[in-house]
Amino acid sequence: MRKILIVGLSILCSQLSFSQNSNKQEDSLNLRKLYDMSLLNGKSYLWLEHLSNDIGGRLSGSLDAQKAVEYTKKELETLGLDKVWLQPVMVPKWVRGAKEFAYIETAPGSTRNINITALGGSVSTPMGGAKAQVIEVQGIEDLARYGEAQIKGKIVFYNRPMRADLINTFEAYGGCVDQRYSGAAEAAKYGAIGVLVRSMNLRLDDFPHTGTMSYGELRPSQRIPAAAISTNDAEYLSSLLKIEKKAEVYFKLNSEQLPDVQSYNVIGEITGSEFPNEYIVVGGHLDSWDVGDGSHDDGAGVVQSMEVLRLFKESGIKPKRSIRVVLFMNEENGLRGGNKYAEIAEEKNENHIFALESDSGGFTPRGFSFEARQDQFNQIAAWESLFKPYLIHYFELGHGGADIGPLKNGKTVLAGLVPDSQRYFDHHHSENDTFDQINKRELELGAATMASMIYLVDKYGLSNTSEVSKL
Amino acid sequence: MRKILIVGLSILCSQLSFSQNSNKQEDSLNLRKLYDMSLLNGKSYLWLEHLSNDIGGRLSGSLDAQKAVEYTKKELETLGLDKVWLQPVMVPKWVRGAKEFAYIETAPGSTRNINITALGGSVSTPMGGAKAQVIEVQGIEDLARYGEAQIKGKIVFYNRPMRADLINTFEAYGGCVDQRYSGAAEAAKYGAIGVLVRSMNLRLDDFPHTGTMSYGELRPSQRIPAAAISTNDAEYLSSLLKIEKKAEVYFKLNSEQLPDVQSYNVIGEITGSEFPNEYIVVGGHLDSWDVGDGSHDDGAGVVQSMEVLRLFKESGIKPKRSIRVVLFMNEENGLRGGNKYAEIAEEKNENHIFALESDSGGFTPRGFSFEARQDQFNQIAAWESLFKPYLIHYFELGHGGADIGPLKNGKTVLAGLVPDSQRYFDHHHSENDTFDQINKRELELGAATMASMIYLVDKYGLSNTSEVSKL
Repeated sequence: MRKILIVGLSILCSQLSFSQNSNKQEDSLNLRKLYDMSLLNGKSYLWLEHLSNDIGGRLSGSLDAQKAVEYTKKELETLGLDKVWLQPVMVPKWVRGAKEFAYIETAPGSTRNINITALGGSVSTPMGGAKAQVIEVQGIEDLARYGEAQIKGKIVFYNRPMRADLINTFEAYGGCVDQRYSGAAEAAKYGAIGVLVRSMNLRLDDFPHTGTMSYGELRPSQRIPAAAISTNDAEYLSSLLKIEKKAEVYFKLNSEQLPDVQSYNVIGEITGSEFPNEYIVVGGHLDSWDVGDGSHDDGAGVVQSMEVLRLFKESGIKPKRSIRVVLFMNEENGLRGGNKYAEIAEEKNENHIFALESDSGGFTPRGFSFEARQDQFNQIAAWESLFKPYLIHYFELGHGGADIGPLKNGKTVLAGLVPDSQRYFDHHHSENDTFDQINKRELELGAATMASMIYLVDKYGLSNTSEVSKL
Repeated sequence: MRKILIVGLSILCSQLSFSQNSNKQEDSLNLRKLYDMSLLNGKSYLWLEHLSNDIGGRLSGSLDAQKAVEYTKKELETLGLDKVWLQPVMVPKWVRGAKEFAYIETAPGSTRNINITALGGSVSTPMGGAKAQVIEVQGIEDLARYGEAQIKGKIVFYNRPMRADLINTFEAYGGCVDQRYSGAAEAAKYGAIGVLVRSMNLRLDDFPHTGTMSYGELRPSQRIPAAAISTNDAEYLSSLLKIEKKAEVYFKLNSEQLPDVQSYNVIGEITGSEFPNEYIVVGGHLDSWDVGDGSHDDGAGVVQSMEVLRLFKESGIKPKRSIRVVLFMNEENGLRGGNKYAEIAEEKNENHIFALESDSGGFTPRGFSFEARQDQFNQIAAWESLFKPYLIHYFELGHGGADIGPLKNGKTVLAGLVPDSQRYFDHHHSENDTFDQINKRELELGAATMASMIYLVDKYGLSNTSEVSKL
């Protein structure tokens, strides 16, 4: 009996191990197929060329955002998906108006122009512009120290730089972005008449970087105009203030918040063959800022996500679960698309098991960060060796993505593609975010990496699916 | 007795483990220090700016190569090293002469200019240029198939592209570069009058990429001119030949091989405090091609190697073994510097335990490839976890570097820094290898990664050193 049991166990084990090996071999071949197809006959780069060069910057509510909706829907319709549709969502419409203008004046006639760009959501300056002395601070914390006595009537210049010693540049961004987001609201409380914020950029260059900001609870009459200043000009201004404390800055913004307008998330779906009610989402955001053409933020994520579904169709891999590409509208200044998608998903009681976002640039992919329970993360981390041939090595718990964030419910696993981050803030939200700064292979490797992860999630399931198997 | 032995063993183990922990903590802190110093106060980027923008392309035997020798020697002399010297080496001097010119002619007067660049070492065309019909081949193997009947009097056009499906772009390069290196020598045997080679570039663009070539055993009278053609023009020519089989190409090269001239390797040393006769080398090559300014190939490797010694001096880490920076001359078209260095090292019976080269571009470092025995590799691989905070994950057996290759003797461990390779061949040996294509942080991360490896090799030794310890 005991012998039989042992023999039986060892047969079972060898069968298990045979099935594991054959699974692993099939997975290796399928990942290779996905990478080959993306690198040899991919469409992501062509799509991005159109989105970036023919359409351009796609701020929510703009004509170009609408063109991007129409173009990506049309392209998804060519892929033979089971469904393609638009999901209506009202979005804020902020417009920059005529280009900003600014200079530093040390004495009448002694001026130097500086590069600025209005922050997204900023009010305009008075019609004739705003001019005042400048007080440089290293962060919001400094305001209380200087107090109304030293701030009132002045322009507050937030100049805390991103930390160059942090390896992950997003961490450096996280350590500074409060100046941009809340700097104006806080400075207004001390009577400042405007705000300049050092661009969120690790490099010294002439591109001012915009980005969203908020006035918090301030009444419209209390709001002050806010702009980013390029890192080169921030360095210059800071040096100058050391010797010319009374130097004044003049700046003029022409921005305006208009009423909300109709827009859309663009969605395409391959319906699952076995578990059609279990949804896997892959996405990026279709809107971008209006400076540059939004190639890295987030044209790359958009076309990579579209490519994932194309790769499934072209490779003949039929998913068991339903896979949706979602091109979210309005990540940059409202997150209305992400919120709307999650709201409708909840209304329809759709079981989302996994959502993957690409919104960290189109650079060489290094891996993923996961918002997941430890047991779910362990399941996924067991697949890591399959990615080794593609130099994908980063599997860590961390942030998923802004647009998929509203899907968070304790069960759905959220994940973000993690590309190399070193160059990202050279481009982010600036005129330097352009198509020529995209490397075709890096973009395509990202798409294949995303498709591979989704292939594995679909095949093996996760602890939140009706059926789950091990590699 | 037995009890005493066990107690004794367990004390020994806990001491070992304590010393391991304290070593590991010290190593973590020292690596952090090296990365911080490189990212916050590094000199590599400033040095490269001078080498690239103020000096420029540094082909062996040129005035600019000599300027680079003088500049780097002078800079090394500011670092407080124990020795800085020039090691004389005679180098070949090939000159491009006036810029190349080429066009395709389908009928008299119906021409289209194409972008070409003479391969390094090529003879010139006849004074009036060369003009002939073109035969397109996919590689040297094709020549025998077409034979003299179809090749004689024609220009052979090697058009096998680099494979886009290979993740490591150097592997794709290795699969094509025989066309460039030996294409002319082989085509001449079949009576070809010239050779055009598709640029070693994965991207479609207008930059022709030069690089070294050899005529093998061919007598001077048998040598035919050879040039690279840009990938865009290679695609165009190939398409055209399908419909206009008799299209001719005209090209004119003005290159010339002059007598060898005097040049130098530049060397600096920190002499080891405990084992001064055990040498660790870190280096890159000071020469570059004459197109572009050689920022990635190999200005980056040069300044990173200089930075390694600067980081040791500035951090106060005193190496036990002697650490040398060697800036090799003539990697591109002769390897005379690498050969000379190894020759002198052997003459002087210097025990080189480790040599690390950076010659794969200034991109984000991913790790190292090692030419080492398995036991030596295992020693080094045990340090991998120390690099994890810096996203350094690639530790594999493989190629060290061309310049350090002559040091290979079965004992010396050779290693190459492995940066991300996706963009490298967009730049390599072309006018697109310029300073603006260098990201400061990526360059600095590479320097810190190299310094960290050398710190560990120096501290723990390897199986070829007089003393070796474990982490």
